Amino acid sequence: MRNLTQDNITQAVIARFADTPDARLREIMTSLVQHLHAFARDVRLTEDEWFRGIEFLTRVGHITDDRRQEFILLSDTLGLSMLTVAMNNDKPAGCTEATVFGPFYVEGAPHYEHGADVANGAAGEPCVVRGHVRDLEGRPVAGARIEVWQADAQGTYDVQREGLGQAQARGVLVAGPDGGYHFRSILAESYPIPDDGPVGDMLRATRRHPWRPAHLHFMIQAPGHETLITHVFRNGDRYLDSDAVFGVRESLVADWVRQPDGSWLVEYDFVLNRAPAAPGQGAPA
Amino acid sequence: MRNLTQDNITQAVIARFADTPDARLREIMTSLVQHLHAFARDVRLTEDEWFRGIEFLTRVGHITDDRRQEFILLSDTLGLSMLTVAMNNDKPAGCTEATVFGPFYVEGAPHYEHGADVANGAAGEPCVVRGHVRDLEGRPVAGARIEVWQADAQGTYDVQREGLGQAQARGVLVAGPDGGYHFRSILAESYPIPDDGPVGDMLRATRRHPWRPAHLHFMIQAPGHETLITHVFRNGDRYLDSDAVFGVRESLVADWVRQPDGSWLVEYDFVLNRAPAAPGQGAPA
Repeated sequence: MRNLTQDNITQAVIARFADTPDARLREIMTSLVQHLHAFARDVRLTEDEWFRGIEFLTRVGHITDDRRQEFILLSDTLGLSMLTVAMNNDKPAGCTEATVFGPFYVEGAPHYEHGADVANGAAGEPCVVRGHVRDLEGRPVAGARIEVWQADAQGTYDVQREGLGQAQARGVLVAGPDGGYHFRSILAESYPIPDDGPVGDMLRATRRHPWRPAHLHFMIQAPGHETLITHVFRNGDRYLDSDAVFGVRESLVADWVRQPDGSWLVEYDFVLNRAPAAPGQGAPA
Repeated sequence: MRNLTQDNITQAVIARFADTPDARLREIMTSLVQHLHAFARDVRLTEDEWFRGIEFLTRVGHITDDRRQEFILLSDTLGLSMLTVAMNNDKPAGCTEATVFGPFYVEGAPHYEHGADVANGAAGEPCVVRGHVRDLEGRPVAGARIEVWQADAQGTYDVQREGLGQAQARGVLVAGPDGGYHFRSILAESYPIPDDGPVGDMLRATRRHPWRPAHLHFMIQAPGHETLITHVFRNGDRYLDSDAVFGVRESLVADWVRQPDGSWLVEYDFVLNRAPAAPGQGAPA
């Protein structure tokens, strides 16, 4: 295997993966090499551009740590995350739709009783969130584990704030016997994704805005049901039609209603799908 | 732009790049999104696999530092580096061929006089390297800047050795009035690419060996000539036909000849191409 040219190198690289014991890994590596090479060929990538790509990915790697996941942000802004969600969440009609996981989930969120304030000190206008978790037949899913996380009035998640010693505006609740849940938090506001790193540079160079429409993140898990990772978006937000990460589903848009005392109320009911037959369809963790 | 599906999301993402002022960047981002999405679609990437990809790239980023470039290693082992070299180095017949840059080049190598020992203490059997640098018409390229770097007898480059305070087995020479050069160093030996990181895990999971055939790296620069980044490979090496990074060119294979005193001699003449008309064809730095 000497003297490989731009015309035969792709087949030579693929042949090198022929002995991969795991057939699925072999399939993935084969396709990855084909598409990676096809991209380089299509644009006739120069050596300088190749090196700038190496530098870009190095920066993405170096800014990523336990609290910031720039690779997920990159996947989100290139639409790869939402494409993957769409391919893997072809649920029956009536189920709540899924959307992107995002880079701000962290494990170990505090547990709360119904009615508690999950904001836990995060800045923002007071807001009550309530609803029910049901199955496709309309039956309550008692005991469903409901995890919620959101940004504060400044558009930042707790994990983005240096030196903050506690979880804020994130928490876990357990649905009651009627599938019901309710908690206090703060008003969801639109915010820019973190744009002080390489993904932000990419957005600026391509004249894309970094904004996401206001939303709450939810992950809902219950035995016998497919894990649901989704958002509830705030109706009327100016970025609903240009979400920087392509995550908006019309069915996930809800009204935040101003109450007489100045606080806010949003109600949203979730419908879980039956558990999938195959493994590997749960939360990406 | 709501309710994007797996069938229309790619066009929606591409449309988001429509206002990119730099036409070349727009072309690259458009093609990248098309091929990235096509890959995910072809293999029907699961959410768990997507997350494992994020974790893999995160590891590649975190092991990369000033002395180790795992993204280049990944590009090399997927054949992307050699494809890029092949597309951008379609030189006239008679020119020395180019090959991959590799992850072990560092700036600031020491300068040496002809005849000096660039090994500078690196372990290995003594070897003399000599030859000439000429242009396509056979004229000497006096004053050409010749940079060489190589691994030692243990298969490691100086930058891979913790705590080593000096450059070893790398250096810069200037070709004489006749284009000639000669220096002392150590015998080139085959070696495995660093396989204690995520790229090594990929090679093991796919039953690929990490070995490269013995070689010297050269970068040769001279005004009015195209920069040449190449290797000289050692004839007879068992890995010449299965180089882990796909870099072997038959024309770059030379004989290392054992001398009566037990040392080695290799002679290699380089032929530089004329300077390219367009910019951006030089060294990737």
